[in-house]
Amino acid sequence: MEAKPVHVSRTYMTELIFPQDTNYHGTVFGGLVMAYIDKVASIASMRHCRKTIVTASSDNLDFLAPAKLSEALVLEAFVTWTHRSSMEVYVKVQSEDLLTGEFKKTATAFLTFVAVDENGKAVPVPEVIPETDEEKKLFETAPERYEMRKQRMKKELIY
Amino acid sequence: MEAKPVHVSRTYMTELIFPQDTNYHGTVFGGLVMAYIDKVASIASMRHCRKTIVTASSDNLDFLAPAKLSEALVLEAFVTWTHRSSMEVYVKVQSEDLLTGEFKKTATAFLTFVAVDENGKAVPVPEVIPETDEEKKLFETAPERYEMRKQRMKKELIY
Amino acid sequence: MEAKPVHVSRTYMTELIFPQDTNYHGTVFGGLVMAYIDKVASIASMRHCRKTIVTASSDNLDFLAPAKLSEALVLEAFVTWTHRSSMEVYVKVQSEDLLTGEFKKTATAFLTFVAVDENGKAVPVPEVIPETDEEKKLFETAPERYEMRKQRMKKELIY
Amino acid sequence: MEAKPVHVSRTYMTELIFPQDTNYHGTVFGGLVMAYIDKVASIASMRHCRKTIVTASSDNLDFLAPAKLSEALVLEAFVTWTHRSSMEVYVKVQSEDLLTGEFKKTATAFLTFVAVDENGKAVPVPEVIPETDEEKKLFETAPERYEMRKQRMKKELIY
Amino acid sequence: MEAKPVHVSRTYMTELIFPQDTNYHGTVFGGLVMAYIDKVASIASMRHCRKTIVTASSDNLDFLAPAKLSEALVLEAFVTWTHRSSMEVYVKVQSEDLLTGEFKKTATAFLTFVAVDENGKAVPVPEVIPETDEEKKLFETAPERYEMRKQRMKKELIY
Amino acid sequence: MEAKPVHVSRTYMTELIFPQDTNYHGTVFGGLVMAYIDKVASIASMRHCRKTIVTASSDNLDFLAPAKLSEALVLEAFVTWTHRSSMEVYVKVQSEDLLTGEFKKTATAFLTFVAVDENGKAVPVPEVIPETDEEKKLFETAPERYEMRKQRMKKELIY
Repeated sequence: MEAKPVHVSRTYMTELIFPQDTNYHGTVFGGLVMAYIDKVASIASMRHCRKTIVTASSDNLDFLAPAKLSEALVLEAFVTWTHRSSMEVYVKVQSEDLLTGEFKKTATAFLTFVAVDENGKAVPVPEVIPETDEEKKLFETAPERYEMRKQRMKKELIY
Repeated sequence: MEAKPVHVSRTYMTELIFPQDTNYHGTVFGGLVMAYIDKVASIASMRHCRKTIVTASSDNLDFLAPAKLSEALVLEAFVTWTHRSSMEVYVKVQSEDLLTGEFKKTATAFLTFVAVDENGKAVPVPEVIPETDEEKKLFETAPERYEMRKQRMKKELIY
Repeated sequence: MEAKPVHVSRTYMTELIFPQDTNYHGTVFGGLVMAYIDKVASIASMRHCRKTIVTASSDNLDFLAPAKLSEALVLEAFVTWTHRSSMEVYVKVQSEDLLTGEFKKTATAFLTFVAVDENGKAVPVPEVIPETDEEKKLFETAPERYEMRKQRMKKELIY
Repeated sequence: MEAKPVHVSRTYMTELIFPQDTNYHGTVFGGLVMAYIDKVASIASMRHCRKTIVTASSDNLDFLAPAKLSEALVLEAFVTWTHRSSMEVYVKVQSEDLLTGEFKKTATAFLTFVAVDENGKAVPVPEVIPETDEEKKLFETAPERYEMRKQRMKKELIY
Repeated sequence: MEAKPVHVSRTYMTELIFPQDTNYHGTVFGGLVMAYIDKVASIASMRHCRKTIVTASSDNLDFLAPAKLSEALVLEAFVTWTHRSSMEVYVKVQSEDLLTGEFKKTATAFLTFVAVDENGKAVPVPEVIPETDEEKKLFETAPERYEMRKQRMKKELIY
Repeated sequence: MEAKPVHVSRTYMTELIFPQDTNYHGTVFGGLVMAYIDKVASIASMRHCRKTIVTASSDNLDFLAPAKLSEALVLEAFVTWTHRSSMEVYVKVQSEDLLTGEFKKTATAFLTFVAVDENGKAVPVPEVIPETDEEKKLFETAPERYEMRKQRMKKELIY
């Protein structure tokens, strides 16, 4: 399996914020942003491996600033690193005020997906070739996040 | 008001096709694609004029090939031409087979939006500067489509 | 196959406008009206041909007046004309102020559907017999719209 | 306030059954039919009184036959009887097999709505004039249903 | 088949009221509450019989007080009584003001479900053993409600 | 402000898995589970502080086993620890096979919410009193998770 450059999986999504997506403060629900993040990240991981995938975990999803009515959500996702059958996907969510054109970083997240065959069994995925500075930085720091995830899961399974 | 190049309004949207979006043949509902087309075109027109907008008409929406389960819908929209307070937006919809990476032209459409102020009154929008060959072609043929639309509406209002 | 009178396919749909269906001006989203139009027109075309159908195109969808919260959308659709396996459907959308009983013409549209068999292959449909004045007018002007559609599609496929 | 004939409130609704509306047997969810029934009955009651309304109760909702994929739901609702500020609405739900044109009685229900002013306080509604045999029968048997409802609620409030 | 105590089927559901769930008065739509009631009651009846079920009827659904934005809906459902293949389920809906912690009884309902096999044919279900005072009261009064339902349906089928 | 025992915020939610919630393998979408997790955790945090809240982060959301059609999702959430205006909420998701009664641990997550006043400014929340062994363990390990979150966010903001 040949390694693929990161831009192969880069996926953009633009979503309008509708009245029903917001609470009393007119700011968008966290759960909706989470569902969009999972959707854009799923597509990015399938563009990398061209296989069926399942969500394994969503880590470090941080809401940095509220998105509001009259804004659009602009999401960008790409595969940062792979390990056998698992892919780490980074998602950046910005909100764009459609009346002024101003952008604001709204949320970031790291998700892990696993490629599976028709029986749901994990199958290997191609490696990733980072090219830009951002991609290289995320690629280099990925093994550390992978280790933290593994240790964390070991602990949690005790609960 | 300064004219703006077409790329200012260019908007990309990627949507996963879910089981509930498809009929017995496993092909996506026309009505859903229409709603996505209106959404991406709305954002494109607001990115051009940075004002509130209302949909005036949807013309020439053609379904060229069915999109199916396990595919993503990839939409692209941009303002092709303006006339006082109205903007013509072109939308191209492709379906991407996420397992093979194959793209297929699924639908195209021309929509017209009108910029309005807080009282719903039409307000002027900036002109458009086409740059690529595709943008120039669509810009040059827009007045003809505008005329057809006007004549058509005159006739229809008789019904 | 025996021709059928237009009233066989006539379909009525009434929809409440909910808060989530409206924008900042309290007027209903164009995309939602488009989805309702496709739904009512689909049913009308199936009532005419009693076969599975796919949406081929949506032409000349004009928004004539905004529908608002506290109103209902009242849709009427029927097959105006057929050509081999394709059916032209006319849809008229009115909004009804439920507190006053006042009706307003909100949108009109012409859609084209194609009847298909279980393999998605086009199959012939019965002809249409127009009876009222409105039906006859739409029946007589349909071939002209059909020609415009064909010419338009030829041009568009170049883009 | 002048009494109004029943046909003033008669409301028709047609809904397509989508794959997501059905369970493992391919039959439509009861909860969805209930939501459609409430929607069509709300419109009927507002057409009668031209006031804001709230749902007071849903009685005697019986599912007589399952509706299935490839069918449409055809709902009919009208006000059968009034009592001060409350209106009894009868709803009949049929399913139509869109491929054969066969109709089947799917469900029937009686709902009670109360007209309210802007403070949510009950306000009187016009009386109803039944004209057809079905309307007269439902009008005459309404007081009995009203009594049963009152007695039932008295008992239930003890739980 | 061994009888089961009522607590086996007791099911709790908590739902947030979103802006899109409310009308002009900021109170929740009756149709939505009806859909939630059907959902929680379906789960309760499956927990009792561990079979596929279909909704047979919804009786005596009374809206006692409006639920509002900034409140949660708290639903509780359990099987009160069985008769061959049918189960009566009682549902109590409360609204909780999330800012004050105050609870309010919003609606109550009795639904009847029938257990079916893979061909949709009715199959017997275990009996119920009431334990608390509330359960016993509802168990004892169930045959009377069953009789009323039967008589009512006989009458209605004439319409 | 008086500290509150954990059981005050404990919230249960039961959701049916509908056909539209599942992918080709018949397993539920990660994004949907994420939206349910945010919903149940929001209610739990409001039950603890009785104030409006915003989602700050979702950490360590792990999918342990797929949930499937014909199963219900059973969610449990409670506040484990607080720090000034922020609350850590633990969510456990189980899937229940409604035909067999078998439960399976599907996902776990830790989310952080911040209580805000009407201007969106952070306001202090009561402390938490853990009582059961599980609650005590999660309470004691919370400061460590809080530190990891802080360090992680510092790093991420560089990207």
